[in-house]
Amino acid sequence: MEFVEDAGEFNLIGRLTAISSSKVRPPVMVGVGDDAAVYESSEGMLQVITTDALIEGYHFDYAFYTMEQVGNKAMVVNLSDIAAMNARPILATVALGIPSSYPLENLDALYHGLTHVASTYGVQIVGGDTTRSPVLMLSITVIGEVAQSCIVYRDGAKLGDYICVSGIVGEAAMGLDLLRNDADPSIIGQNIWDQLTSRHLMPVPRLDLVDQWASQGVHPSAMIDISDGLANEIHHICKASDCGAVLWESCLPLPEECPTGLDPPRSSLDYGLNGGDDYELLFTASADVLNQMSLDQITIIGEITEQDVRLHRISGTIESLPAKGHDHFTSADPQDTNSEDA
Amino acid sequence: MEFVEDAGEFNLIGRLTAISSSKVRPPVMVGVGDDAAVYESSEGMLQVITTDALIEGYHFDYAFYTMEQVGNKAMVVNLSDIAAMNARPILATVALGIPSSYPLENLDALYHGLTHVASTYGVQIVGGDTTRSPVLMLSITVIGEVAQSCIVYRDGAKLGDYICVSGIVGEAAMGLDLLRNDADPSIIGQNIWDQLTSRHLMPVPRLDLVDQWASQGVHPSAMIDISDGLANEIHHICKASDCGAVLWESCLPLPEECPTGLDPPRSSLDYGLNGGDDYELLFTASADVLNQMSLDQITIIGEITEQDVRLHRISGTIESLPAKGHDHFTSADPQDTNSEDA
Repeated sequence: MEFVEDAGEFNLIGRLTAISSSKVRPPVMVGVGDDAAVYESSEGMLQVITTDALIEGYHFDYAFYTMEQVGNKAMVVNLSDIAAMNARPILATVALGIPSSYPLENLDALYHGLTHVASTYGVQIVGGDTTRSPVLMLSITVIGEVAQSCIVYRDGAKLGDYICVSGIVGEAAMGLDLLRNDADPSIIGQNIWDQLTSRHLMPVPRLDLVDQWASQGVHPSAMIDISDGLANEIHHICKASDCGAVLWESCLPLPEECPTGLDPPRSSLDYGLNGGDDYELLFTASADVLNQMSLDQITIIGEITEQDVRLHRISGTIESLPAKGHDHFTSADPQDTNSEDA
Repeated sequence: MEFVEDAGEFNLIGRLTAISSSKVRPPVMVGVGDDAAVYESSEGMLQVITTDALIEGYHFDYAFYTMEQVGNKAMVVNLSDIAAMNARPILATVALGIPSSYPLENLDALYHGLTHVASTYGVQIVGGDTTRSPVLMLSITVIGEVAQSCIVYRDGAKLGDYICVSGIVGEAAMGLDLLRNDADPSIIGQNIWDQLTSRHLMPVPRLDLVDQWASQGVHPSAMIDISDGLANEIHHICKASDCGAVLWESCLPLPEECPTGLDPPRSSLDYGLNGGDDYELLFTASADVLNQMSLDQITIIGEITEQDVRLHRISGTIESLPAKGHDHFTSADPQDTNSEDA
């Protein structure tokens, strides 16, 4: 008999999609396979829908998170999926599984976290379901909107497009290692400790860029949000767009080296390429489009090529860049993974 | 410290709604408090959204259900919520929490059940999330559509409206008791046993009535689906509509008395009023509207009054009809409840 742990997350999704039929028909335009599903709600307007589940013990750990932070992050990961389609989130439903012995004040804190993020980005929580569960379980669905002419999928990257990323990549995974290894903030510096750990505990959806591009009248050719690490995500774009990529090590916006307590220590490059939970946007754009974008929030890190995903090292060598990142099923222990993706 | 089990489900929803703000603003028209949330997707068209979570051990029991039936029922309870708004379902997302040791063939069967129901009613499963979980956990969100002029809320019941219900109420709860008490099909009669247990294991969303009413150009004034028992649901309509109701015992479409193995036995009336999981539609309509509806699938069971919810007994007495039904949190043991509502 075959078990779920033998299949791995991506095979599992493929297996289930085959059962439910991957073919979409109107009004649905995209089903499984992008950051969100897409359908045409009215002439020229698209809705994007994303669902994420968070399970106690797998996606968050009470030792690190306050309940408000759990609520915060649960909403952010969904809003980030909406941002990755270049869409604006409108409303959310929340399904909660709660142990009977769960303290009400923790539940309130969780809901304050959810609500704070939702209201910050103009999202209304319109309902959902509460039920009993052996561990805390949260499933959030967010619906967003975007004009048909502005939606950005994963499959739009073109030969010669530049590859860009927002913010700094790898800080969230570095922050998680600081927390897991109980690193001393006074050695690292309180400011740096706060910055890195908050990147893990309190991520921010990059809807500011969606707004900025809307006001500039431009948008990327392909986009994805970074939940499973930059290397993994560029592979997703290249596979969907049937192209290759080269990333330039010298251009990657990496965190400063920082003692996380790991032995041997993990390099900033490894954090940047294979860390998770950054919720930054990775996208491609032609030179023409890029010329019309503000570059203060984004970094050009590479170029779309015909095939293969490669890393151009500072040393001058060009090497293959494997997709790493986190698989929710094949890791032996959730605590051993390098990300806590939702 | 207060715990979730002290609050009860409806207080809990109120508490969480207060935190997330029960006030809705455009484009949202209804948030928490009806069968589904409602928002205006384009001029004159409304979308309705519903979310339900199913947790292994709380909402289904492997002893009774095949995995295909679990998938079937998980989708049906959501489609029933859409039907209760007089809307048509369009698409669904599925979030799955799965233990690593879960057999893939069970997962396939679950997905076949989900997919079979979805395709029967023209619903596309457009995506979702898979993650690890200590027990099987399923959260489904369904989006439906309805013209603004045809939507039916809980709050539209008017003094003098008739109260109607589709199908037979109480069969699903009776079927569950047969299963729980390991009743002998050969004593009850195989046909009756199959009929009653399938009402629990394989419920049907009454979208046929939504279609029928659309073709007749009529719709109810208020509506809800019966997941928590008829008595409970009529209280919901009366509370939302600020009115009362009288139900006529002699008119209730009850199952035949049947030995379920319970000692003392439970009456058909009790099953009909306080059973759960029927997923029939309970609605109100004026005499004028009712005259235009086919009555072959529905039964007139009472009348909307100014206040109080009462039962007019066959004996001639009129007594108060309390809201019973299932609360997901205050029951000491999920196996002790009389329904396994989703």
